[in-house]
Amino acid sequence: MIETVGLVGVGTMGEPMGESLLRAGFRVYACAHKNRAGLERLLARGAQESGSPADVASACQLTITMVPDAPQVEEAIFGPRGISRGARRGSIVVDMSTISPVASRSFHERAVQSGLEMLDAPVSGGPARAATGQLTIMAGGEQATYEKAEPVLRAMGTPTHVGPAGMGETFKLVNQIIIANVMVADVEGLVFAKKAGADLALLRRVLATATASNYLLDTWLPKAWFEDRHHGGFALDLLRKDLRAALDAGRAMGAPMFSSAQSYDLYDKASTNGRGRDDYSAVADVYEQAAGTKVVE
Amino acid sequence: MIETVGLVGVGTMGEPMGESLLRAGFRVYACAHKNRAGLERLLARGAQESGSPADVASACQLTITMVPDAPQVEEAIFGPRGISRGARRGSIVVDMSTISPVASRSFHERAVQSGLEMLDAPVSGGPARAATGQLTIMAGGEQATYEKAEPVLRAMGTPTHVGPAGMGETFKLVNQIIIANVMVADVEGLVFAKKAGADLALLRRVLATATASNYLLDTWLPKAWFEDRHHGGFALDLLRKDLRAALDAGRAMGAPMFSSAQSYDLYDKASTNGRGRDDYSAVADVYEQAAGTKVVE
Repeated sequence: MIETVGLVGVGTMGEPMGESLLRAGFRVYACAHKNRAGLERLLARGAQESGSPADVASACQLTITMVPDAPQVEEAIFGPRGISRGARRGSIVVDMSTISPVASRSFHERAVQSGLEMLDAPVSGGPARAATGQLTIMAGGEQATYEKAEPVLRAMGTPTHVGPAGMGETFKLVNQIIIANVMVADVEGLVFAKKAGADLALLRRVLATATASNYLLDTWLPKAWFEDRHHGGFALDLLRKDLRAALDAGRAMGAPMFSSAQSYDLYDKASTNGRGRDDYSAVADVYEQAAGTKVVE
Repeated sequence: MIETVGLVGVGTMGEPMGESLLRAGFRVYACAHKNRAGLERLLARGAQESGSPADVASACQLTITMVPDAPQVEEAIFGPRGISRGARRGSIVVDMSTISPVASRSFHERAVQSGLEMLDAPVSGGPARAATGQLTIMAGGEQATYEKAEPVLRAMGTPTHVGPAGMGETFKLVNQIIIANVMVADVEGLVFAKKAGADLALLRRVLATATASNYLLDTWLPKAWFEDRHHGGFALDLLRKDLRAALDAGRAMGAPMFSSAQSYDLYDKASTNGRGRDDYSAVADVYEQAAGTKVVE
């Protein structure tokens, strides 16, 4: 039974995930690299502070990494003060970051060589569902490791064992391919509607019952776009990074990425326009400039 | 109170819509142009046969047109044996076809000049939801006309009055813009997953709980793609026609159509490859050829 859980990465996602672990009764050890404020809030809720990922891991049976990209995962696990320097043999590292499946499989190999067990277990749902412990969690790795980690994952949402090492990241990249392109589809439709003088609130209500219904249009956009004006949510630059990983993986496998390649350019333009830290619905910026109209006044 | 309803167009959608009207107790008059078999099945369920759209309209208080495109709508309403030649003054014509909002507004004007009232009321949901009377119906036109027609529309699904003449078609084109691009997004993601060796059935189950969740992935594809092998559903050539209308309308309004323009090319290629009469999920054909793999074996 796992009782002590380490957390490396206490940003937009890591912090609410840490809260879910505390609520479920786990002893949580965390360390801060950049997000001192997030760490302080977790400490106030009962987490313990450690000085480095190595220190976190030495106190814990299972350590989670939740960081922006593969270089940060590598640093967190294999760096000079990384998890592998502090972890006891047979303890588990669960990387919940979204990174390339290729990089993830190489980290699995190196983790095993270091005497660790590993899962890649990226999530879907964003900060709102992280806060309520309702994330979708897609885990790749050995069945035995998954079974040991499963109660910890369940504290943060609904985990599914989706295949061997790297398959969690593959599932996640498929999710990102779809949401990147669905967001563009929704934005393109809404700008068209705005130009045609449609009542956008009524349009969203009607389309939620039609074949166009999708989670982003029905649930995400009303919050991120109409209520929150692109703040919060999921940063455009992070989606752009995920889409880059998907394009690289697709190219390596010979999977055609017609739509994602074009969508990547749109997110790239929006990022160049200074919208990289906004919710990724800010890809609308490119459309609004071309159309000469704002979708939300 | 409307008791007699005419139906011009008894194809894939018109036939099950006629069945819903009969179930709701309306007297239905219909005529066949191409779909003799569909008409025969409606007659067997209690519909009356008329010789032409003019004859249908002369027997009815409200006449529905459900045909492929604007030229067929024009023929059905204003042709030499069209509805306007037989309809009594003040009777209602409801065009439920998917056509350009520009063409629809011009038909509204001409209908009014002919002493008719008109609604554009295209639908979303496909043959399956037409059969169960659960279509989403988006109606444009005068409020008073909508109120008279509403009980007839309700027999076929859930109608909403979305604005003035042509606004039903605008809402429908927004739906088509979104579904055309969401289908491409789903296909691109599934081909990527297939190339990566993912369990596709498990993937769809997991993504249905994730941010990628959309009606086409969760509900349409399992039937059209995995069970029905692209048969039935909504013909790729009809979607391609709708997308052409959306591209034309978007260009005329100055709405950017980056994604739809590229998706149009993909549907066009699939049609050229002989897949135009299959469900529009057959756009996968282009991906499967490029990837050298079948998504569904």
